[in-house]
Amino acid sequence: MSHIGIDLGGTKIYGVVLDDGNVVREAKRKTPVRGGPMGVVDAIADVVSQLGGTDGVTGVGIGAPGAVDALGVVQRAPNLPGWDQPFPLGGAVSECLGGLAVAVDNDVNVGTLAELRLGAAQGSADVLGIFVGTGVGGGVVLDGALRRGPTGVAGELGHMVVRQGARKCGCGGRGHLEAYAGRWGMEKRARRLAADGQDSLLVELGKKNRLTSSSFAKALAADDEVTVELLEEAVAALGTAIASCVALLDLDTVVVGGGLADRLGPGFVERVDSAAREQLFLKDAPLRVVPATLGDQGGAIGAARVALESVDGADR
Amino acid sequence: MSHIGIDLGGTKIYGVVLDDGNVVREAKRKTPVRGGPMGVVDAIADVVSQLGGTDGVTGVGIGAPGAVDALGVVQRAPNLPGWDQPFPLGGAVSECLGGLAVAVDNDVNVGTLAELRLGAAQGSADVLGIFVGTGVGGGVVLDGALRRGPTGVAGELGHMVVRQGARKCGCGGRGHLEAYAGRWGMEKRARRLAADGQDSLLVELGKKNRLTSSSFAKALAADDEVTVELLEEAVAALGTAIASCVALLDLDTVVVGGGLADRLGPGFVERVDSAAREQLFLKDAPLRVVPATLGDQGGAIGAARVALESVDGADR
Repeated sequence: MSHIGIDLGGTKIYGVVLDDGNVVREAKRKTPVRGGPMGVVDAIADVVSQLGGTDGVTGVGIGAPGAVDALGVVQRAPNLPGWDQPFPLGGAVSECLGGLAVAVDNDVNVGTLAELRLGAAQGSADVLGIFVGTGVGGGVVLDGALRRGPTGVAGELGHMVVRQGARKCGCGGRGHLEAYAGRWGMEKRARRLAADGQDSLLVELGKKNRLTSSSFAKALAADDEVTVELLEEAVAALGTAIASCVALLDLDTVVVGGGLADRLGPGFVERVDSAAREQLFLKDAPLRVVPATLGDQGGAIGAARVALESVDGADR
Repeated sequence: MSHIGIDLGGTKIYGVVLDDGNVVREAKRKTPVRGGPMGVVDAIADVVSQLGGTDGVTGVGIGAPGAVDALGVVQRAPNLPGWDQPFPLGGAVSECLGGLAVAVDNDVNVGTLAELRLGAAQGSADVLGIFVGTGVGGGVVLDGALRRGPTGVAGELGHMVVRQGARKCGCGGRGHLEAYAGRWGMEKRARRLAADGQDSLLVELGKKNRLTSSSFAKALAADDEVTVELLEEAVAALGTAIASCVALLDLDTVVVGGGLADRLGPGFVERVDSAAREQLFLKDAPLRVVPATLGDQGGAIGAARVALESVDGADR
């Protein structure tokens, strides 16, 4: 039984064919900057066709960067060009594929599901997935099921408060995890420090090119003082948010992935693990904080699993 | 169909007979300070007998101040005298009552359940119950069911971090909600301020008698500067924690009860509502923060509901 999983990102669309838990084919293309939602639908159809079409495929899953409701309508997707109002992505792609079943979920939710079913969180039923990249995304699994919430927007870990009233977040809020642990927040902070006279390799690297996760890894490897400090704050903030989530929800597994965490490697996740443990309310809580294992493919794999689980009603 | 609900507190044991959602009888006595867990079992049996015994009663529910596992074993109960290791409270009370079915859950969980089924949260399926007293307790309802977690300790809202690394909590952690919004934390802070030269009516009142929720209400009514400031911090911290929980879990209803909140009245909860709204990640999230309506009886009513729901397997 094959399922297609599509990871719809702001810059690229990546797809896989998942067969019995294995990726048997993959394809990608750029996300179109023109044409709005229908342009994206056509591009997804193009990726499906690159993957060999839908013969023998039972369903398609899509992980989308935004708030997705239970009917596959993407309510908000600020990172997709021209996507300024709710769009029924699932229905539109299904129509384009001759009526094949299409399931849509939030990209972080599907990434968490992938780690739960086929990655680092296998065997756990109560999991927090954390994805550290430009921002910080989260997926919550409780009693084996993804928590979506009545409006479908659960899991906004990056906008939990770790320091009330403190550093400003990209969303306008204050003291959010993302302001300390997201790349965008750290870059902004580095520029502010540079403006105040404390220069850094990070800002230097950002002058030539857009800062990437590799820029952070490079500056860290060079022991750049500001970078070291920013990453210390990021680790502590992640530990704080994890400890809060464990106190509230009694979770036993935290999976840390995303571009920046993947690039910084297991050592980074070990530091987050220590920071979380130090801040646990119940010191003997059976918590493990582990690196994600599916890397870049996680989103598409998880999207294919969403198709499998929602379309076929397969057991978890 | 009648059920008995027992609210087991550190100072008193309060019981009700719940019949078709109505409290038809009530009884109470002091929690014995000697005799450890078996002394408590006897005292519960005494309250049951004051309530008229178990004739016609289908089951007994107990809300206990501590971590309770799925089998009715109270794992930890620091507020009960002589309760220094896990004790199978459900089994022991059942034996004492001739084998009648007995269900045990955490006191805050049952208080939340009571508000959900018969109080302020009726009609909602995704609810945070907050009980502000000496400390701050929380109960989480997701998709209509209480979240207990794999080790049964979910809902420790008071030990979520609102200000990383800041004020010390009674548990030894830092920056926890309870350090700002619990009576004990506020009292400690008031004493610290007095030691630093900033006297307050609160500390004055605490010299003569143990500070109660009424002392806080009195000092607030007198516009005592320190009390006003402490309650402002409490309101802001509660708003922060609520906003974090909503971001993570997509909840639409928050019920605020407990001795201090009940005593300060609806105006206090309205302030918490405003503080939470100001800090919401999604400004248009459909959130309502409302006062608990069952007051002191909530715990016992919720315990009876736990009996009804777990013993009879009744629908939620």
